[in-house]
Amino acid sequence: MTLGNRLLGALRLGLMLSFLGFSVVSAADPLPSWNDGKTKQSVIAFVEKVTKEGSPEFVPADRRIATFDNDGTLWAEQPLYFQLIYAIDKVKEMAPQHPEWKKKEPFASIIRGDTGKALAGGKPALIQLLAATHSGMTGEEFQGSVRKWLATARHPVTNKLYTEMVYQPMLELLSYLRANGFKTFIVSGGGIDFLRAFAEDTYGIPPEQVVGSSLKARYEVRDGKPVIVKLPEVNLIDDKAGKPVGIYQHIGRRPIFAAGNSDGDFEMLQWTTAGGGPRFGLLVHHTDPKREWAYDRDSPIGRLDKALEAAPKEGWTVVDMKDDWKVIFPWGNR
Amino acid sequence: MTLGNRLLGALRLGLMLSFLGFSVVSAADPLPSWNDGKTKQSVIAFVEKVTKEGSPEFVPADRRIATFDNDGTLWAEQPLYFQLIYAIDKVKEMAPQHPEWKKKEPFASIIRGDTGKALAGGKPALIQLLAATHSGMTGEEFQGSVRKWLATARHPVTNKLYTEMVYQPMLELLSYLRANGFKTFIVSGGGIDFLRAFAEDTYGIPPEQVVGSSLKARYEVRDGKPVIVKLPEVNLIDDKAGKPVGIYQHIGRRPIFAAGNSDGDFEMLQWTTAGGGPRFGLLVHHTDPKREWAYDRDSPIGRLDKALEAAPKEGWTVVDMKDDWKVIFPWGNR
Repeated sequence: MTLGNRLLGALRLGLMLSFLGFSVVSAADPLPSWNDGKTKQSVIAFVEKVTKEGSPEFVPADRRIATFDNDGTLWAEQPLYFQLIYAIDKVKEMAPQHPEWKKKEPFASIIRGDTGKALAGGKPALIQLLAATHSGMTGEEFQGSVRKWLATARHPVTNKLYTEMVYQPMLELLSYLRANGFKTFIVSGGGIDFLRAFAEDTYGIPPEQVVGSSLKARYEVRDGKPVIVKLPEVNLIDDKAGKPVGIYQHIGRRPIFAAGNSDGDFEMLQWTTAGGGPRFGLLVHHTDPKREWAYDRDSPIGRLDKALEAAPKEGWTVVDMKDDWKVIFPWGNR
Repeated sequence: MTLGNRLLGALRLGLMLSFLGFSVVSAADPLPSWNDGKTKQSVIAFVEKVTKEGSPEFVPADRRIATFDNDGTLWAEQPLYFQLIYAIDKVKEMAPQHPEWKKKEPFASIIRGDTGKALAGGKPALIQLLAATHSGMTGEEFQGSVRKWLATARHPVTNKLYTEMVYQPMLELLSYLRANGFKTFIVSGGGIDFLRAFAEDTYGIPPEQVVGSSLKARYEVRDGKPVIVKLPEVNLIDDKAGKPVGIYQHIGRRPIFAAGNSDGDFEMLQWTTAGGGPRFGLLVHHTDPKREWAYDRDSPIGRLDKALEAAPKEGWTVVDMKDDWKVIFPWGNR
């Protein structure tokens, strides 16, 4: 067999595999948007050791569970969690049907355009806001509303669609893990139904691999048509110590890889990396005020303090966005 | 190309696909333990039409969600739900550490060997029994205990291991659906942690594809070691109208195929088959008193009344175990 023939054979095999829907793992760099250096090397070294059959650190494919926080880890979270921007936009859209909101906080402030004042009401205001915009409709109606919003709403700083505010290096990491037999999950403090409206198209993560905060729901038959109704009652807050609980209830086994960016991810990383065998904890540190945002210990959104402190002791890898990532967003940098 | 060459080519492709880890769908009967007839044909016709690309009834692989009840659908449930037998055995095992149980129902009756009297206490007795045996330990401790029990406990009638009391025709159906790109889930009224202890080995269904009733859980760090503690508080009763809710919360999209055997599955089948496009509802009817058990409308366990009544109108396929199945268990018939 000549070299030409061999190449042709490899090409044919590749084409056939592509045709069959399997991605061809090339020898090319699997993480092209990551700068070469310790961070990238530690990720690759981990994946290579757990996939090397016969090695003492080999992990069977069905145990290669990887969990990712969403806000600040897979997509941006500044100047405000995008789901909160959705809720605010939704209140404005719903206002004509709710004249009583003109005299009721936090709605009155939102209608007047004073988001700051609305959110100054803290957790009770937030819960009222979420109950009004995230419950009382069917699951299908809610997801339809989120999809419509995501198709048109624009980020206040970049003017991009929110689904364009995803981190290119993290999309590559998700693909790289999946190409190596990992099952990738989202484990987010954000709403499970909100996430499921875009996670498959945006991240390649199907609804059943999304874990998030949720409201209780009720099944009922309306005019002969069965529906799921979203109730204004919390089912799970999938944040902090709620994350390992969400993982336990939903996935049923401990991840071997977890990525987050804030103290809300501390327990998920702790739970993941405390297991036996090879484990990987990744923290995305927002250090790039020019291309993205820079914030950590003092930020009300995505506060990263306790987890950053713990990282060296726990052996977690910290991504320095400024130094480790060649590019931030698929379309470039802001 | 000669026929010989074509066959050789097909063989090579098959070998290569096998080598790559993909199952080769052979022209052989995919459901050998099912008698030929209307039931088997309707299952095969459904799978063939939803997998035929270009056909108006084609369903993309990521939407081929199939949900299966467990008790009475994948494994037997007579003379008593197996999980309940586990709880009873566990009470006997734990009794020496609980002298107070000698004077407290339902424990006192169980310790005396009078299961009937213990269960006559109804739902409150059941909840006490489950709280005592299914909470207060870590998730890992509970699953370890279930695995140990399943490895040794014997069915009171057949003397087989409980994991041997599975229906061979249903194992074939699970494999057949998966070979055709379906993702198979358990959606059971049984406990999610109990199911997860054996579903992967027994059915090829990984923990993250198991939906079941669950208790609340708490994450905590004990002596520096993170654990999930099972709490004596109900999280979800995944039965009747709870099944579509469990599916919604856990899977996040509507199945196109659902199988059950009792009125507890009515809403799951209703929710599944009310969706647009091709849908399949399957009811396993226990009609074979010799090889398995015969029960339906009047049975306290696996009562099948309302769903059996609705089946013709709803277009659900009813399996007549006696007529439709060549063999019941992988080891034969009882």
